[in-house]
Amino acid sequence: MSSEPARSGRLSRRRLFGLGAAGAAVAGAGAVAAGPLLREPPVAHASSTSDPYPFYGEHQAGIVTPAQDRLHFVAFDVTTRDRAELVDLLQEWTAAAARLTQGKESGSFGAVGGDPAAAPDDTGEALGLPASGLTLTIGFGPSLFDDRFGLAAERPAALADLPKFPGEQLIPEISGGDICVQACAHDPQVAVHAIRNLARIGFGRVSVRWSQLGFGRTSSTSRAQATPRNLMGFKDGTNNLKLEDAALLRQQLWADAADGPAWMAGGAYLVTRKIRMTIETWDRTSLTEQEQIFGRDKGEGAPLGKKHEFDALDFAARRPDGQPYIAARSHVRLAHPSSHGEARLLRRGYNFVDGSDGLGRLDAGLFFIAYQRDPRKQFVPIQMELARHDPLNEYVKHVSSGLFACPPGVRDAGDYWGRALFE
Amino acid sequence: MSSEPARSGRLSRRRLFGLGAAGAAVAGAGAVAAGPLLREPPVAHASSTSDPYPFYGEHQAGIVTPAQDRLHFVAFDVTTRDRAELVDLLQEWTAAAARLTQGKESGSFGAVGGDPAAAPDDTGEALGLPASGLTLTIGFGPSLFDDRFGLAAERPAALADLPKFPGEQLIPEISGGDICVQACAHDPQVAVHAIRNLARIGFGRVSVRWSQLGFGRTSSTSRAQATPRNLMGFKDGTNNLKLEDAALLRQQLWADAADGPAWMAGGAYLVTRKIRMTIETWDRTSLTEQEQIFGRDKGEGAPLGKKHEFDALDFAARRPDGQPYIAARSHVRLAHPSSHGEARLLRRGYNFVDGSDGLGRLDAGLFFIAYQRDPRKQFVPIQMELARHDPLNEYVKHVSSGLFACPPGVRDAGDYWGRALFE
Repeated sequence: MSSEPARSGRLSRRRLFGLGAAGAAVAGAGAVAAGPLLREPPVAHASSTSDPYPFYGEHQAGIVTPAQDRLHFVAFDVTTRDRAELVDLLQEWTAAAARLTQGKESGSFGAVGGDPAAAPDDTGEALGLPASGLTLTIGFGPSLFDDRFGLAAERPAALADLPKFPGEQLIPEISGGDICVQACAHDPQVAVHAIRNLARIGFGRVSVRWSQLGFGRTSSTSRAQATPRNLMGFKDGTNNLKLEDAALLRQQLWADAADGPAWMAGGAYLVTRKIRMTIETWDRTSLTEQEQIFGRDKGEGAPLGKKHEFDALDFAARRPDGQPYIAARSHVRLAHPSSHGEARLLRRGYNFVDGSDGLGRLDAGLFFIAYQRDPRKQFVPIQMELARHDPLNEYVKHVSSGLFACPPGVRDAGDYWGRALFE
Repeated sequence: MSSEPARSGRLSRRRLFGLGAAGAAVAGAGAVAAGPLLREPPVAHASSTSDPYPFYGEHQAGIVTPAQDRLHFVAFDVTTRDRAELVDLLQEWTAAAARLTQGKESGSFGAVGGDPAAAPDDTGEALGLPASGLTLTIGFGPSLFDDRFGLAAERPAALADLPKFPGEQLIPEISGGDICVQACAHDPQVAVHAIRNLARIGFGRVSVRWSQLGFGRTSSTSRAQATPRNLMGFKDGTNNLKLEDAALLRQQLWADAADGPAWMAGGAYLVTRKIRMTIETWDRTSLTEQEQIFGRDKGEGAPLGKKHEFDALDFAARRPDGQPYIAARSHVRLAHPSSHGEARLLRRGYNFVDGSDGLGRLDAGLFFIAYQRDPRKQFVPIQMELARHDPLNEYVKHVSSGLFACPPGVRDAGDYWGRALFE
């Protein structure tokens, strides 16, 4: 038995898998028939966390912040050509974000508030709702550094345009953007309210290029969080960079002054990819094939050949028949840091379902979000390897792409998003 | 003062409105500057309710069930022409729904489960998640009663096609459908998982015609729930039919045997409307105009001229200048039961944001859901009045429409969705 942990483990887990695993009562019933319990604690998707996160700090919140359950991500085109207007907007947005993230409305005290003949200075749909863990994180796209605002010399080398990856089918209308804002919260109404009010404040200076809602965070960014599942049903982000990894975060996540430019010290680079999954095809694939494609088992999330989710990946381990437990062309192996000079990403993506696709299928997948110190050394080589060889490519299609430089945190009420870039 | 409650009330509420109202600390700070507090309790949007609702019963769950916070609604086209296959599917779906709503996976015990060479009998993304209050509610559209399945004689008179309403701009691809399923839960991953697995089970017999995600329930269906807000920022559903209104529910919601046909006794009729809001235009409208359009104040939700949300509407009350507090062409007055022979609806709609519209705006609005005993006497006359005269029409557009007969509840494990229709 002990020489074949995958096989025996799989069978018992499989029984539980077919049997359901929500709550002790169910697991208890299963134990009689199926042996070992699935001891996974419930994932706190429906968390009632209502407290605010601090807005001011060395780094922007919403990066290593324990991933909240809901997302509203927006990319704006800047429509003004006036640099001063853009700076004014960033100052107004920062003031609004400082309020919104603390559970307050977007308007400032008494500014427009007293006059019922004026439009309200907040749209109102979050009145009475708590902060809900809202974070707002801003990023600047490559296009912001064109000739409109005199920023060309400040464009970071790490903000190099992404190469074309094999197989991607990007839709320009839902890719790119001059400025992005990522709103994460435990309540979608709070996240939507925040983005909507930033768009309202920006009227006449920016327009919404694209936006994306997401649910069910598909990575943990803290060891205090259980690993959630993506829409392929697999745990996602087991070996993600996490906020407790202080040394790795300094090495892999935060840009420092030596990286240049100076205004990005303490910031990070963000890559977004909207990855459409053909879930109907996936759902007709055998469990064995699904597990071999990922390199992990589906129930527990353990590396094939191991028993537990957090057991170390061992690419040398072989089954009794001499074949490796984890195939050379499995997702976990192709994406593993050991295949890319130890390059890692801090992922905090979300599942999405955008209605149906008009062909009788759900329009569903993963909105991939990854933060890092230098996409040229991290996202690009990892994704190039996956785009070329990942067996998952049969079931996924990249349809949108975004790249943004996320500046450091706002230090205090006298500071604003991107000040060091403009002053 | 007491002769002008609206004016004095509005000013103090307006101050609070501009000031933010999330939590006691904020309200306390506001009290110094602005007088009366906004005493609204936080709406439990991020409820952590994880318990299951019973699946079996006289009526289907998901109608008077206290409205959960998240929605995944799907409309299917039946692609088989074989009545027996359709009946098989309804039986399989019922068995899966009985399991899913109790927090179990969709597969039956051991059916496909033992064979790793087979596709898993559940897609897996809800493994480890609790029941999260999931309800699944089925309805049959008018098109199911065409000549394919021999059901024409069983079509209820109350399932008469809706008339064309002035101003509607329906998109056929996201309207109608042979069968709908409404999944409501406190966790979107649980609602999406349920719909996806029903679609998976239906492969080859049904295809997804359209689907819609929603958040932030826009009506309460129980007096135990606080009234939530729609994306216009107003409380919505203050005077909704609620599960505590037993006599009204018998009169207004549940079809009985005398209504005919017999198979619908204990069921209800469902109307869905996807209502796109031009929120950017709305957000530039003055508070006074917004409140006059609705006929309620925005902060508290009180009828204009009154102080509290649940104060009775008084259309005869007049301001000192002789004008009615609530205009004849206000939304609350046009929709009020007194304007429609006391006809009422049980609404349980959801807010939606479907990305952006390609024109620089969020694609946002209300997915309206209303249950009733007879749409010919309830939804149709109410909506005809609104479509003709509601000043809100300047800010909304109906883009999808659905009409479904929702059969009574499944009595026990030997019963199935719609059995009385087919046997």
